[in-house]
Amino acid sequence: MPRAGFFGATGFAGALAAHLLWRHPDFELVAVTGRSELGRPLQEVYPRYRVPMSIEPLELERLQGIDAAVVAYPHAAAAPTVGALRERDVRVVDLSADFRLRSLETYERWYGEHPRPDLLGEAVYGLTELHRQEIATAAIVANPGCYPTASLLALAPLARAGLIADVVIDAKQGISGAGRVFDETTHLSTAGENIVPYKVAAHRHTPEIEEQLALLMGSATATAAAAGAGARAGAPGELRVQFQAHLVPLDQGEMASCYVTTTRSVAAAELRELYVDAYAEEPFVELVGEPPGVLEVRETNYCRVFAAADEHTGKVIAFGAIDNLWKGTSSQAVQNLNLMFGLPETEGLQ
Amino acid sequence: MPRAGFFGATGFAGALAAHLLWRHPDFELVAVTGRSELGRPLQEVYPRYRVPMSIEPLELERLQGIDAAVVAYPHAAAAPTVGALRERDVRVVDLSADFRLRSLETYERWYGEHPRPDLLGEAVYGLTELHRQEIATAAIVANPGCYPTASLLALAPLARAGLIADVVIDAKQGISGAGRVFDETTHLSTAGENIVPYKVAAHRHTPEIEEQLALLMGSATATAAAAGAGARAGAPGELRVQFQAHLVPLDQGEMASCYVTTTRSVAAAELRELYVDAYAEEPFVELVGEPPGVLEVRETNYCRVFAAADEHTGKVIAFGAIDNLWKGTSSQAVQNLNLMFGLPETEGLQ
Amino acid sequence: MPRAGFFGATGFAGALAAHLLWRHPDFELVAVTGRSELGRPLQEVYPRYRVPMSIEPLELERLQGIDAAVVAYPHAAAAPTVGALRERDVRVVDLSADFRLRSLETYERWYGEHPRPDLLGEAVYGLTELHRQEIATAAIVANPGCYPTASLLALAPLARAGLIADVVIDAKQGISGAGRVFDETTHLSTAGENIVPYKVAAHRHTPEIEEQLALLMGSATATAAAAGAGARAGAPGELRVQFQAHLVPLDQGEMASCYVTTTRSVAAAELRELYVDAYAEEPFVELVGEPPGVLEVRETNYCRVFAAADEHTGKVIAFGAIDNLWKGTSSQAVQNLNLMFGLPETEGLQ
Amino acid sequence: MPRAGFFGATGFAGALAAHLLWRHPDFELVAVTGRSELGRPLQEVYPRYRVPMSIEPLELERLQGIDAAVVAYPHAAAAPTVGALRERDVRVVDLSADFRLRSLETYERWYGEHPRPDLLGEAVYGLTELHRQEIATAAIVANPGCYPTASLLALAPLARAGLIADVVIDAKQGISGAGRVFDETTHLSTAGENIVPYKVAAHRHTPEIEEQLALLMGSATATAAAAGAGARAGAPGELRVQFQAHLVPLDQGEMASCYVTTTRSVAAAELRELYVDAYAEEPFVELVGEPPGVLEVRETNYCRVFAAADEHTGKVIAFGAIDNLWKGTSSQAVQNLNLMFGLPETEGLQ
Repeated sequence: MPRAGFFGATGFAGALAAHLLWRHPDFELVAVTGRSELGRPLQEVYPRYRVPMSIEPLELERLQGIDAAVVAYPHAAAAPTVGALRERDVRVVDLSADFRLRSLETYERWYGEHPRPDLLGEAVYGLTELHRQEIATAAIVANPGCYPTASLLALAPLARAGLIADVVIDAKQGISGAGRVFDETTHLSTAGENIVPYKVAAHRHTPEIEEQLALLMGSATATAAAAGAGARAGAPGELRVQFQAHLVPLDQGEMASCYVTTTRSVAAAELRELYVDAYAEEPFVELVGEPPGVLEVRETNYCRVFAAADEHTGKVIAFGAIDNLWKGTSSQAVQNLNLMFGLPETEGLQ
Repeated sequence: MPRAGFFGATGFAGALAAHLLWRHPDFELVAVTGRSELGRPLQEVYPRYRVPMSIEPLELERLQGIDAAVVAYPHAAAAPTVGALRERDVRVVDLSADFRLRSLETYERWYGEHPRPDLLGEAVYGLTELHRQEIATAAIVANPGCYPTASLLALAPLARAGLIADVVIDAKQGISGAGRVFDETTHLSTAGENIVPYKVAAHRHTPEIEEQLALLMGSATATAAAAGAGARAGAPGELRVQFQAHLVPLDQGEMASCYVTTTRSVAAAELRELYVDAYAEEPFVELVGEPPGVLEVRETNYCRVFAAADEHTGKVIAFGAIDNLWKGTSSQAVQNLNLMFGLPETEGLQ
Repeated sequence: MPRAGFFGATGFAGALAAHLLWRHPDFELVAVTGRSELGRPLQEVYPRYRVPMSIEPLELERLQGIDAAVVAYPHAAAAPTVGALRERDVRVVDLSADFRLRSLETYERWYGEHPRPDLLGEAVYGLTELHRQEIATAAIVANPGCYPTASLLALAPLARAGLIADVVIDAKQGISGAGRVFDETTHLSTAGENIVPYKVAAHRHTPEIEEQLALLMGSATATAAAAGAGARAGAPGELRVQFQAHLVPLDQGEMASCYVTTTRSVAAAELRELYVDAYAEEPFVELVGEPPGVLEVRETNYCRVFAAADEHTGKVIAFGAIDNLWKGTSSQAVQNLNLMFGLPETEGLQ
Repeated sequence: MPRAGFFGATGFAGALAAHLLWRHPDFELVAVTGRSELGRPLQEVYPRYRVPMSIEPLELERLQGIDAAVVAYPHAAAAPTVGALRERDVRVVDLSADFRLRSLETYERWYGEHPRPDLLGEAVYGLTELHRQEIATAAIVANPGCYPTASLLALAPLARAGLIADVVIDAKQGISGAGRVFDETTHLSTAGENIVPYKVAAHRHTPEIEEQLALLMGSATATAAAAGAGARAGAPGELRVQFQAHLVPLDQGEMASCYVTTTRSVAAAELRELYVDAYAEEPFVELVGEPPGVLEVRETNYCRVFAAADEHTGKVIAFGAIDNLWKGTSSQAVQNLNLMFGLPETEGLQ
C-alpha cells in the first residue's frame, strides 16, 4: 500500500484532503504537517473530519519511506518543498499554482518570480479528465484551481471542436473558497446575505484557463477562432478569457457560467453530441438535462455540466457545477493520486 | 394629500410596497386588496411589515376618490385592472410586465396576447433615472423588472455613448426574487447552500433590457455598434443581450454583472467620466470605487454601480447592485409615485 | 445478502434512508415505493442522492422475497403497512410514531386512535444505544423521533443514576426537520434569518422522551426523584418533561440543550464518570470536552454529548448534537437494520 | 438640539448606534471616535450605514459643547471614559457592563475590579420599560445586555407578580452577537449550518438578569418564591437563574426562551392578564398571540413577547424576541437618549 504524506493540512482544502486520504482504503497516511496548530490532532482543529493524527512540523529528513505527497502551501512556498520531495523520489500532487502553467513567462507575469522553474518540465496539469494519461506517470501533478476545474469541464468540448471565438466566465463560489481567512470577507454578518464580486479583471485563475483552452483548441484552430471576434486586446490567435469571480453566501459549492461566442453557428443537436462524446464515459462528470445546482454535487467529486444554445443571441451557454473543496481541490487530488498509483480512479471517492 | 390604493398586496413586493406607502408621510393609503388572505390584516400575513389594514377583495366600483394606484398582479392580469383604474382617472404604477415594452410585437413574442394594447401609448417605462421627465406626467408608469433595473443602471452610461457592441449579463438574486412561491426553488433545505441558474436562454427580462438599451443607443448608434461584433443571430443593427439569472441563498439582494464588448477601446479615465457624468447628481445611484456587495444596499432604494476596464481582454465590466424588492420593485414604485405627484423624489425612502 | 424494501421514500428522511440502503454493502435494495413522484428515479427527485431506482406504487402482493423493510409514512398511516409486512414475515424499521410508545393510553392521548394496537407487543424502541439487545431480535423496531434521540442520549446517564428531578429540554433544529413541506415555515425568505419556536407546550415528542426516561429511571427511582421538585402537574412519581422545539436557519442539524434539576448535588468528577461509563464504548456517541456544534456531526450517525455541572445554580446542563436526518432518523434506521441482521453496527455508516 | 458624541463606533453595535444618531431628527451627532480605522468615514467601514463622519481618536479636551454621549467600549475600559465625560457634565448612555450591576460585589465576582465604583450611584439600569422614570433624569444610563433585554421583558410580568420559583433561560442569537470578531466563531464556513452553545454555566449576563429579577420580585416576594423549589445552590431567598446562550446561523436576531417553575399554579387567563397589563401601553413591546420569530422584529426597536401556560408540566413558557443589535443594544440606547432629553420616546426609531 502506498504511503502518503500531507504537507500543509491546516487550510480548508488541506484538511479535507488529509481526511480523504485518511479514510482511503488504499493509501496509508503516515504524516500530516502544518505550520500552525502544531501538535494538535487534526480532528480537534477540524471537528467535522475525524482524523486523529497530530499536525507535525515539516522535517524533510524524516520523510523516509513516503511514496506519495500532497502539498498544500501557498504559491511560491510550495515549489521548494515539492523540489525537496522530488529529490527523495516522492511523487507529488501540488495544490498550489506553482506548476499549473506551462509558460514560465505567464507565471511570472501573474505571480512573480518562480522559485523552481527547473521543475516545470516534470509537471502535468492535473485536471484529470483532460490529462489522464500524463497524470498516470507524472512525477508532479499540478492540481488545478477550483475555477479552472469547473470552467474547463464546461468548455472543453467546445474548445476541442474549435468553436470558441470569445468567452465570458462568470463564477460564483461559497465562502469556503476564501479559505481559512478571518476578516469581513468571511464573517457571517458581512458575507451572509451578500453577493460580492472580487478581483475584478485580475483573477489569477485567468491565465490557467486560457492556457488550457489554447491547448484544447490547438494553436492553428485558436488562431482561426480568435481572428473573427472578441479578443481585441490579445495578440492574433490568442484567446483572452473574461473571468470574473463572486462570493455568495454558502459554505461549499461553485458554479462557472460560461457564455461563448462561437466561431460558427452551433445547433442544439450538435452541441448535445459534442458533450455526450466528451463525457459519456467519465466517472465524475455528469451531463445533465437541466441547469444544475451546486447542492447536487456537494461533498462529492462530481462535476455537473449543462450546455445550451441560445437561439436568440447565437451564443452557447455552458455551466459547470462543482464543490470547490472537493472536485475543485481535494477530491480531485485523490482522483489524481489514484491514477498515479495504478488504483481505480474512483477509489475512496464514492 | 394624494389618496393611494394598493392592488395585489399579498406577494413579497406587493406587501413591501403597501408598507412603504403606509408609512409614507405624503400619501394616504386608503385601500389594500388581494386575491387571497381576505379580511386578514396585512401585518398578520407579513409580520415584519406593520400595516394594520385588512386585505379586501377588489371591487372597482368602490374605488372612488383614489388618486394613485399601485397594481401588483401577474402579467396579463394586470392590464384590465389598470384599464379600469384609468377609466376612473387614477394614475397607476403597474408592477407587471404589461406596459414595460413599447413594441407590441415584442410583448406578444415573449408573453402572448396583450389584453389592453390600446393603453400602451399612455405608458412610460418607470426606470426613474432614465425617464424622470415622462414619469412625472405619465398616466401609467410601467415599473421595471428588477433585473432590468440593475442591468440598465450599470449599462446606461455605456449605451448612451454608443459603446456597447455586445453584452453578457450574468445576474444573481436572492430567493425573495422567486416570490411567495412554495416549492423546492424556495425551500431552505434545497435553496440554501445552493446556486442555481434558471430560465436558461429564456428570461423575459431580456427584451425589456434590449428595448431600453436600444433607446439609449439611439437607432443610428445601435446600428453602427452591432455591426462590428456579437449579435450574429440578430437583424443588422439590433443588439441581442445575453441575459442569465441565478438564484443564490440569501433573502433580498441582486447583482447584475455586465460584460461589455465595446465598439472601440475605452480607457479607465474616460469610463470613470462617463459614469460620473451620468450619476453624480442621482439621489439613488451610488457610484463606488470598489466592487459593491448587495448587503450595502439591502432595504434601501439605492443602486450601487461600479465599472472597470479590463486591459487584458479589452472589455468593460459593470456591476449594478440593488435590493430586488426595494429599488428592484417596491421602493422604485414609490420613487415614481413621488415624481408623479410632485413630491420630492426621496420622500418616504430614507 | 438481506433484501430490503423502502416504503415512502419521497420525504427528506425517506430519501436519505433509501440512499443509505442503496449504497450499503450488505443490503440489496429491491424496491422503493412512494405515494407521489411515481415512476421517477429517486435521483431525479433528490439529485444529491444518486439512487437510480424508480419510485413505484406500493403493491403489497409484489413484496415477495423481502427480508427487511423501512417504512416512512406518517403516523397512523404506517401501522397498517407495518402489519401487512409482518404478515409476510418481513422485519420492519418504522420511522413513524406508531410503535414508539409502549403505553397505548399515552399514544391515544397524543395521537388519537391507534390503527394496530395488537402489534405494539412486537415493537422495540429503536434508540440503538439504549435497546441494543432487544433490537437485534425485534420484529418491529420503532425508530425514535429526532428530538428524543438527541435528548435521551444527552440525559440517559443521569436518568439511569436516578438523578433527574426535573428537566427542561430546549431543542433547536434545521429546516429539514420541517420536512418536504412547502410553506412559510420552510421558504428561505421567511425561515432564513429567523428563529421560531413551534408547537409550544404541545410537541408529540414529549411523551416519547418521558416514557423512555421513566424506563431508564426505573419506577422506584422515578418516584423518589419526582417527589422532591418540579413536576407539579404530574401524578406522584411521574416525571413531566418540559420540551420545546425551535426552527433555526440551517438545513440539517439538531441540538438538544437539557437543563436538569438533580435529585441531589452532583460534582463534576462524578458527572464525568457517569458519561464516560455510559459512552466510552459506543461507536456513535462522542463524549466531548467542549460544547459541540451540530456541524461536527453533519451527515454522520454520530451524536456528540457534553455535560457540565453549573455550580452557580446546582443544575446539570447536558447537550446532545445530531444531524436530525441522519442519527435523528435515517442513519439510525440503518444502524438498527445492521443489528437486526447480524451485521457490524457501523456497516455502511462510515 | 442636543449635541451628541459617539465613543467607540467601530464595533457592530457602535456603528449602528452612530447611524441611528446620525439620522435622528433631534440629535446633532458632532463626534465619532474609535480606536481603529482612524480617519476613515464610518460609511467606508460599514457601507450599509451611510454615515459620512470620519472616525477620530478620542481627545477628551476637545469634547466641549457635548450634551449627550454614547460609550461603546469593552467593560472596564468604559468606566474611565464615562467618568471623564461626567466631569464635563455630559449625560452618558454606556453600552458596556460597567454600570449595569448595582452590587459592586457581584460586579467584581463576574468581571474583576471595577475602575470607577464611585460612579455606580449615578447610574440607572437602562431597560427602558422597567426604569423609565429614573432614566429620564439619570446622569449615566447603563444600557442592558442584549440577553437581559429579551429575557427580562419576557419575564417581568411574572417576576412582578412574585410567580417565579425557578427559571431556565435558553437564548439563541445570530452571529452579529459575537461582534466584529474574526475567527471560527464567525466564519461563514464554520458558523453557518451550525448551532453552538457557548459560555456554558458562565455567561456574564446571568447576574444582570438575576439582579433585575430580584428587584422586580421585591426582596420579600423573592424569599417566599425561592423557598419552595429550584435554587438549591443559592442562599435562601435568592433566585439563581440558569442562563445559556447559543449561536445560530443568522446575522441579527435573538430569542430568549424562558421556562418558569411558578410559585403557584397560573391559569391561562391570569397569565394573559398579567402580560396585557404590563405591555398594553408600551410603544415597543408587542404582545403576540403566536410564538414570534425574530425576523418579525429585525432592524426594529420592538420586542415581541409571548407567554403560555403548559398544562402538562405546570410551567410557564415565555419568549422574548428582539434584534440583538437594535433593541438589544443600539436602538434601545436611542430610546433612552430620547427619554433623557425630553423627546418622544419613539423619535428616530420608526
